[in-house]
Amino acid sequence: MMYSSIPSAQTLVLFFQSKGAKHIVISPGSRNAPLTLGFTKNPYFNCYSIVDERCAGFFALGMAQQLQEPVAVVCTSGSALLNYYPAVAEAFYSDIPLIVVSADRPSYRIDIGDGQTIRQENVLEKHIGYAANLKQDISHAPEVLTKFGPKLLGKTQEEIQAYNEEQLAKALHVAIQEKSPVHINIPFEEPLYGTVDSPTVEISLTVDEPKRVSEPQNWNQLAEQWEKSSKVMVLVGVNAPNSMEKEVLEVLAENGATLVFTETTSNLYHPDFFPSIDSVIAPIEKSSDKEKLFKSLQPDLLVTFGGMIVSKKIKAFLREYRPKEHWHIDPKKAYDTFFCLTRHIKMHPNDFFKAIGLSSTTKNTYRNYWETVKKKYEKSREAYLNQISFSDFLVFDRVIRSIPEQFQVHLANSSTVRYAQLFQMDKSLKVFSNRGTSGIDGSTSTALGGAVHAEHPTLLITGDLSFFYDSNALWNNHIRNDFRIIVVNNTGGGIFRILPGKEDTKEFSTYFETNHNLNAKHLAQMYGFGYQNVSSDEKLKTSLKDFYSPSEKPQILEIFTPRKVNNKILLSYFDFIS
Amino acid sequence: MMYSSIPSAQTLVLFFQSKGAKHIVISPGSRNAPLTLGFTKNPYFNCYSIVDERCAGFFALGMAQQLQEPVAVVCTSGSALLNYYPAVAEAFYSDIPLIVVSADRPSYRIDIGDGQTIRQENVLEKHIGYAANLKQDISHAPEVLTKFGPKLLGKTQEEIQAYNEEQLAKALHVAIQEKSPVHINIPFEEPLYGTVDSPTVEISLTVDEPKRVSEPQNWNQLAEQWEKSSKVMVLVGVNAPNSMEKEVLEVLAENGATLVFTETTSNLYHPDFFPSIDSVIAPIEKSSDKEKLFKSLQPDLLVTFGGMIVSKKIKAFLREYRPKEHWHIDPKKAYDTFFCLTRHIKMHPNDFFKAIGLSSTTKNTYRNYWETVKKKYEKSREAYLNQISFSDFLVFDRVIRSIPEQFQVHLANSSTVRYAQLFQMDKSLKVFSNRGTSGIDGSTSTALGGAVHAEHPTLLITGDLSFFYDSNALWNNHIRNDFRIIVVNNTGGGIFRILPGKEDTKEFSTYFETNHNLNAKHLAQMYGFGYQNVSSDEKLKTSLKDFYSPSEKPQILEIFTPRKVNNKILLSYFDFIS
Repeated sequence: MMYSSIPSAQTLVLFFQSKGAKHIVISPGSRNAPLTLGFTKNPYFNCYSIVDERCAGFFALGMAQQLQEPVAVVCTSGSALLNYYPAVAEAFYSDIPLIVVSADRPSYRIDIGDGQTIRQENVLEKHIGYAANLKQDISHAPEVLTKFGPKLLGKTQEEIQAYNEEQLAKALHVAIQEKSPVHINIPFEEPLYGTVDSPTVEISLTVDEPKRVSEPQNWNQLAEQWEKSSKVMVLVGVNAPNSMEKEVLEVLAENGATLVFTETTSNLYHPDFFPSIDSVIAPIEKSSDKEKLFKSLQPDLLVTFGGMIVSKKIKAFLREYRPKEHWHIDPKKAYDTFFCLTRHIKMHPNDFFKAIGLSSTTKNTYRNYWETVKKKYEKSREAYLNQISFSDFLVFDRVIRSIPEQFQVHLANSSTVRYAQLFQMDKSLKVFSNRGTSGIDGSTSTALGGAVHAEHPTLLITGDLSFFYDSNALWNNHIRNDFRIIVVNNTGGGIFRILPGKEDTKEFSTYFETNHNLNAKHLAQMYGFGYQNVSSDEKLKTSLKDFYSPSEKPQILEIFTPRKVNNKILLSYFDFIS
Repeated sequence: MMYSSIPSAQTLVLFFQSKGAKHIVISPGSRNAPLTLGFTKNPYFNCYSIVDERCAGFFALGMAQQLQEPVAVVCTSGSALLNYYPAVAEAFYSDIPLIVVSADRPSYRIDIGDGQTIRQENVLEKHIGYAANLKQDISHAPEVLTKFGPKLLGKTQEEIQAYNEEQLAKALHVAIQEKSPVHINIPFEEPLYGTVDSPTVEISLTVDEPKRVSEPQNWNQLAEQWEKSSKVMVLVGVNAPNSMEKEVLEVLAENGATLVFTETTSNLYHPDFFPSIDSVIAPIEKSSDKEKLFKSLQPDLLVTFGGMIVSKKIKAFLREYRPKEHWHIDPKKAYDTFFCLTRHIKMHPNDFFKAIGLSSTTKNTYRNYWETVKKKYEKSREAYLNQISFSDFLVFDRVIRSIPEQFQVHLANSSTVRYAQLFQMDKSLKVFSNRGTSGIDGSTSTALGGAVHAEHPTLLITGDLSFFYDSNALWNNHIRNDFRIIVVNNTGGGIFRILPGKEDTKEFSTYFETNHNLNAKHLAQMYGFGYQNVSSDEKLKTSLKDFYSPSEKPQILEIFTPRKVNNKILLSYFDFIS
């Protein structure tokens, strides 16, 4: 065992160990040497080395998302820290305990013309749960301080130690209890590489009682409100796999006035739920009876839980046809997504559904009608798949059917996650997607991080833009051989052909679609992945047969689809099922 | 000609046109469609499409640095904006007019659970010259606003228009006059793709008088102070090529009590200047007469201009042996880099040296002594080069000698720029390096941006880590065929073997050096570069012969050097010349 000789570095390492933050993703640097030494020379910690901080941030995020525990990234001073920001924003909106640790220069060296020196304190403040700005030890290199930073000598070392401990305790508390990203900035004076065999500081820890938020509710009144509503909609956003109890789902399914709308990212499966929201709503949008049908779908009571909703269609519908009541169930926060939030019930949805005690009732007209609609589109979808040519739509059907049971699946933004919504995933799959900011900037890194500790293999499904955007993700020594990537390459941002604004002009293909002719082969070779590509249904079927079998390398399957056909086939699907 | 139908988008485009901001780097997205349409459908603007916003930011920075005029980046809403931050921080510390334009969702859609939505306003505020947060037009889609954002209706469209114009004028003023990065955030309501043939707004422009800062000075007193000092040191940081007049340099060279210390990034050449600072200081550090020698080098008066100083050795020396007076000459800012700044003279250094009117004097002891030292190390260096084996040190000598006249040279961080300091560049070369934050995150993108409008070809010299870090830079349709990249690949962060802390342990090679076995071949193939690699002096000489000749593709030359030898040869150089 070895510790940095700098007290604040020891203190940070000891705090992390005490609070169980044991996964540390380190990017190279000299200023962070006291931490790198402290973490890598201590067998308690699992350390990972990733050079590009943008990838490191998302890799740690993926690990934290999958483990549901804090994971730290550690970088040197300067712009390194700023490269974490995309992952931090994702963590902020997805409630993931990403701990950002940035080594810094002493404060008197900021803005005096030193290299790799920026204004690091609070620099992530708009998207962070807590920012701890630690103070420099005055017991370390006091002769340097006396010469250059005499103002810092105003406090005693004991005061500094106490302050740093208090700040570290706060930051870790927020990360662990509130599942928020936090930022710890820690300035170090040179020399940076000194070590000691055992810590010279002793930290005083207070025990954090796990926070179990559960505000008192008038359960009878809530239950009554629910029971008297003849149209209840439960809508589930991003939700961690296995977070909901099976009995709760049964209770929901057996409430005959309730429609449960789930998304691929909800990780909730029940034969009576409605998993393809857009397949219900798109036909209504196209109907001449639109107004009437939307009104008949409009709930009296909307109950939501989980994170972000993927479907734009359901958001537009519920904003237009607002329910009288909207309750959001979440221990931490409630967004007024539909501009009609009436109640934020601060508790875990499991506890909520158990406490409210719904009765099992026979299906009413509302439920019956929409179940008929659901059966109809499921049948139509099959018919449609039998008649279309090779395209994104067909590929997603084939790919989603092919995924072996128990796999972890990461869906990249943004076409991928939208397409995946249209098909039924096997209920044993665990689905993740970065829907906090819905960026294309770190899907591959996140999937790789999520794979590290997963019980089963991971499949990343991604589009070409998100794959190439995060190409540095593959520069990573922690990739499991059973990791699989499917790149659906339609040579550009296929989503722009679906959104309004599509044109057949050079400006459109250059600045919106960003048409390219890249493929993943070279990156596969460079980073030691197995690689194959296909561009027909037959070849795809053949390739998928062995794609998931154990292998000595991780594998990439690239599927080329025709960019000018994809959007037509998707849009015609909604016509077909209407 | 075509404009977005949204007034604020028109206003922004018209302002940019009026103020001469004509280079626009666009990343794909839908929220920024009103701007993408406005810029790309207007022949006044030169537009560039780059998908990865981190690269786009540095590409624009490189262009602005080289052109010395504002260049804009434009992105969609969400985490896209955060990917610009590394380039923004570099622009902030290097005084480069990078204009960041982020399209945003309407304010009432922030933090309600919409996708690609973060807190964009002021998010770059710690490193920005000005942040303009434009307001949404209420004349566009008023029915949507009435329904969802009625609070925004409090102002009239005229008030909004006036506010947006005022904010745009301020932002552009700061970018152009103060050479600072600025951020313009502009929220758009759907529909986003509407266009009109001619603008529906008329903007009122005020003419900005070019700011010519020149505070009154007591020139006689300053001149007297200079002339009476027997030891004057002029130290030049990062300085744009051709920014100093030849006569001024002559005057400096002819002042016999003055040593002019330049760096590779100073872009100043004169036979009497001292271009390899470390070759002067390292031998002193190793001398038994260290104290005496440093005192004899210590200036009475230190005059600095330009940006950041690369040499750590001169910074350490001047902080320890502080001059009585330190004047920094810069129209904008003065960092107290050596903790002894006595005067910030706010003017262009050309004007300063002309106004102070130095006399031509015979060389005094100070000057004579250090010129002898200089001649000695120049001779020793030649001898040393004749006896060492293939290594980074030898490679830099060969490469720097090989660069054709007039080339533009971009030096990546951080080993590259440090090695380059040790050798003499041809005086016709124009040298750039991102020394604002000294990051490895965007060197390739910056060099590519700087090349676009350069009169002569550009050579990027980079290390392996910085090259792979910014690998997405090559995903760019605006690369000139005469662009050249030399990657000095020592399979890791060679600089860590030079810094204190080096160990022969797995932790060191994994977490500090980040040893890898990657090469640039696959990236070259992927992105259409010619490629060759060498790992001996003979092969290097042969390759360099044709490397700069006109070609139909840009070219990469990768030079493999032995990682465990490089540091020894560099450190022995300083011993050898001592």
